[in-house]
Amino acid sequence: MSKEEAREEVNEEIKIKGNSVSPAVIKRLPRYFRYLRELIRSGKMRISSGELSELMHVTASQIRQDLNCFGGFGQQGYGYNVNYLYTRICEILGVGEGFSAIVIGAGNLGRALVRNPMFEKRGVDIVGMFDVSPDVIGITVAGNTVRNMEELEAFCGEHQVDIAVLTLPKDHALSVAERLIALGIKGIWNFTGKELDHLHPDTVVENVHIGDSLMTLCYELRTRDERKEEEK
Amino acid sequence: MSKEEAREEVNEEIKIKGNSVSPAVIKRLPRYFRYLRELIRSGKMRISSGELSELMHVTASQIRQDLNCFGGFGQQGYGYNVNYLYTRICEILGVGEGFSAIVIGAGNLGRALVRNPMFEKRGVDIVGMFDVSPDVIGITVAGNTVRNMEELEAFCGEHQVDIAVLTLPKDHALSVAERLIALGIKGIWNFTGKELDHLHPDTVVENVHIGDSLMTLCYELRTRDERKEEEK
Repeated sequence: MSKEEAREEVNEEIKIKGNSVSPAVIKRLPRYFRYLRELIRSGKMRISSGELSELMHVTASQIRQDLNCFGGFGQQGYGYNVNYLYTRICEILGVGEGFSAIVIGAGNLGRALVRNPMFEKRGVDIVGMFDVSPDVIGITVAGNTVRNMEELEAFCGEHQVDIAVLTLPKDHALSVAERLIALGIKGIWNFTGKELDHLHPDTVVENVHIGDSLMTLCYELRTRDERKEEEK
Repeated sequence: MSKEEAREEVNEEIKIKGNSVSPAVIKRLPRYFRYLRELIRSGKMRISSGELSELMHVTASQIRQDLNCFGGFGQQGYGYNVNYLYTRICEILGVGEGFSAIVIGAGNLGRALVRNPMFEKRGVDIVGMFDVSPDVIGITVAGNTVRNMEELEAFCGEHQVDIAVLTLPKDHALSVAERLIALGIKGIWNFTGKELDHLHPDTVVENVHIGDSLMTLCYELRTRDERKEEEK
């Protein structure tokens, strides 16, 4: 067994723990989801790990490890069935579970998110938008009328709401999150910049810090310049 | 030596390769940046790894490893000097390098980004906005007048532009990126959903897929429900 193969086996072991998919693989699945979606759109039915590797700029061995670890649907010499793979990944990720979401904050970001096809693609249904500003209460964004935040409790009493998308100012994030948790909302997608982890054991929070990605870009730019200096 | 300690030593070795900071640590630095910024705002001058650990929900040993690996500024018993740590992290990440950016696409997302204080906080200066739609050309967003895309070449000839922020539709992402690269722009912050890696060896691309984070949230929600079912 080569060193490479041995390492692969160890990685496999790390990934498959009691049949559950490891967080590292889960983190990579949305990217497969996007690429497979494009393949389906372009009419491609089968793809080998080699082709997928070239397309996604990931090693073929990584792809085989990632995809085999939740039920080997690759067939030697035949490649992967694109549709089957896509469906399996959707199942694992919870796409098409029929989750419904409300958006709190109807500013530019809230409106940009609601108009983005990403919710529909991932099977999440926007059922309401809320704001406190009289300037936006009553306007319609992609078919959703912006409601007054005062109606939040009544609305959540009448509708099933799984996810709240927070695009309101940072200073109000915590109090609104607590209100949502009291209303039984289980998922918070948080764009406020205020970290909201560990609020409640039953609540899942996903914090999005767009600025972190800007910093990564700046770091890459700075070090690229340094590398170029060194090369001179 | 305990198993824990041995693991720490190995982790240390992985992280410090020829004095450069590993990508894993770099990825975590923006989060330290945010927390340290808040500490400075609240007037805190010193913090121990234990306090930082409690605040950030990361183990103290992880914090010590992350922060010591670019020049031990923690002093046993005294904790970290918050200002010094913040300054060092800013230097490493390229905050305050004076990068300038243009935003291509003045829709809701483009406008939301330009109005967000994140650029200023990270020392990136927005110098221009561009769009193709007559509906938005000429409007002013946070002090920036939206220019016609036809003016892009002339503008970049007259101004230093380091970063282009792409918030235009996916189908135009590649052609615009190629135009930007031809104009000598070295950093692309890409919100289009079209992956733009490996375009040019000199160009740094940071792809932002907001929808990936929505899928992670859905996955967590779905498995939380499953875990609850199992517990019954």
